[in-house]
Amino acid sequence: MDEFSFIAKYLKPLAAHFPGSLNLSDDAALIAPPPGCELVITKDAVTEGVHFLGSEPPELIAAKALRVNLSDLAAMGATPLCYFLALMLPKNTGEEWLENFAHGLAQTQKEFSISLAGGDTTATGGKLAISITAIGTVPTGQSLKRSGAKEGDDIYVSGTLGDSALGLELLQQGEHDNHFINRYLLPQPRIELGIKLRTVANACMDISDGLAQDLGHICAASNVGAVVYKDQISLSDCHPAFIAGSGSRDRRGMTEKALTHGDDYELLFTAPLSKKPQIEEISKSLSLPITCIGKIIAGNTVKILDASGTEMILSKKGFRHF
Amino acid sequence: MDEFSFIAKYLKPLAAHFPGSLNLSDDAALIAPPPGCELVITKDAVTEGVHFLGSEPPELIAAKALRVNLSDLAAMGATPLCYFLALMLPKNTGEEWLENFAHGLAQTQKEFSISLAGGDTTATGGKLAISITAIGTVPTGQSLKRSGAKEGDDIYVSGTLGDSALGLELLQQGEHDNHFINRYLLPQPRIELGIKLRTVANACMDISDGLAQDLGHICAASNVGAVVYKDQISLSDCHPAFIAGSGSRDRRGMTEKALTHGDDYELLFTAPLSKKPQIEEISKSLSLPITCIGKIIAGNTVKILDASGTEMILSKKGFRHF
Repeated sequence: MDEFSFIAKYLKPLAAHFPGSLNLSDDAALIAPPPGCELVITKDAVTEGVHFLGSEPPELIAAKALRVNLSDLAAMGATPLCYFLALMLPKNTGEEWLENFAHGLAQTQKEFSISLAGGDTTATGGKLAISITAIGTVPTGQSLKRSGAKEGDDIYVSGTLGDSALGLELLQQGEHDNHFINRYLLPQPRIELGIKLRTVANACMDISDGLAQDLGHICAASNVGAVVYKDQISLSDCHPAFIAGSGSRDRRGMTEKALTHGDDYELLFTAPLSKKPQIEEISKSLSLPITCIGKIIAGNTVKILDASGTEMILSKKGFRHF
Repeated sequence: MDEFSFIAKYLKPLAAHFPGSLNLSDDAALIAPPPGCELVITKDAVTEGVHFLGSEPPELIAAKALRVNLSDLAAMGATPLCYFLALMLPKNTGEEWLENFAHGLAQTQKEFSISLAGGDTTATGGKLAISITAIGTVPTGQSLKRSGAKEGDDIYVSGTLGDSALGLELLQQGEHDNHFINRYLLPQPRIELGIKLRTVANACMDISDGLAQDLGHICAASNVGAVVYKDQISLSDCHPAFIAGSGSRDRRGMTEKALTHGDDYELLFTAPLSKKPQIEEISKSLSLPITCIGKIIAGNTVKILDASGTEMILSKKGFRHF
């Protein structure tokens, strides 16, 4: 199957309901935000051997590539609008793979009401690489940023952390299809939460490189410090830290994973105490746990404290590409 | 040099004058078109071994990656605004390479008044790959498209064709630093021409995959056919078809390159006869040759005719990735 047949057969249907895509027949797409809104634009690439193993079903690779970008939109409080796809394909990629990849995009588009708007399909002499640019809209001035955290703010995290780290381990050990592996393969962008936080959070980002490092980004952008109470970090109920072992609930190893492993794609945000009732209401309405894990303080460091108030020293802070 | 130091030292200065970049400190950028305008968005990826050899100076790789995207903006008649960069780096890329790459972006930004707005820097286990999303602005409704060509329109091409094909050949033969090699390494996006054509051309695109194939795209989008007179295709004055050989001016091989090789990044457009004086004026004001090479006709095929009116059969139509 050649390049143009692939675009015509599998990509054009993904752009059919978005007029600005010009049916993928032009050099570029045309986009204007709705009145009173601005565009939120993010670009995240994923590459074989770094962000995914390569052996996953192509539907899942496509879904994850799009979802990590949707997670950035969620972090800014944006409503998804459209995306651009650059697909760099190793030679001899077969039609079945391409069809399944497009199917993964189609499913994700439907779930998050987003459309393909343009992009580029090219060969690579290297490994599979996927670059997506996702565009969302937000009422002008209401986007969430990393820079708004204020001394005294509570620090919140949605969902549970560390699931994805464990999922990757289990996958590498040959397991498949359990809660943790699904969390690794199919992250859940917290779009609805981001939208509801527009008027609630002072600062927000998604956790892609590990809580400790990402909270450091909020602190640096906001010129503040933070203290995190490690026992308040929320792990999955079915996590081995609870259900296996001696019953001593020694969560240290698991909590360290939750603190330093990326790929959780939960939202990390800060808000003043006065917003606590609203945050509880949002948590209830979305059936999504939101946990207070610490406080924004003066200074410029992130301290992780255990139950006795002793500072935890992390063996690494978070994921770095190089 | 780690990921965050690279971003802080080399990429943040490239985004410093574009407020919507949020200083590259957030999950996404914020962009709104000026009043009365819409955004033109394109995404073109380049990969080592396909779009560039890999041995080029990093400044040139950066410049070409950005310029091919700028050429798509030119094709739509857009004024450059900002761009997003996904840089997929092989392990052990050194700081000198990164510094020179950023320098190439800086030079190109300055030349075309465009700013970095966001992106992603990631490792790859494969070869170097660069995905850029470029954004321009155009008065609402005035963008150039492929779909507007009308029967009877003249077909025009800016500049000269085939230079880049010859440049690549010469580069592979070990030559360096001549007119043709520079045309291959450093394409010239026709931004000013695109802007002037907004109210002149009926259809427009840039020639990236070869004239014959790209004109086919305009015909398909516009539901028309085309006839091209091969002797009217403009080659460089210093082209070997003129200065070397028997003096017989057998241009066939060179013209076939001009017809089927990509990487020219000239604009291909159609306009009614009534616009001819304006087009001549534009050509003069930009000191850029603009040549009429054929006519839009009824039907759905592209015919290339020689001086005797015989149809030329091309051994391949143009560049395809797979």
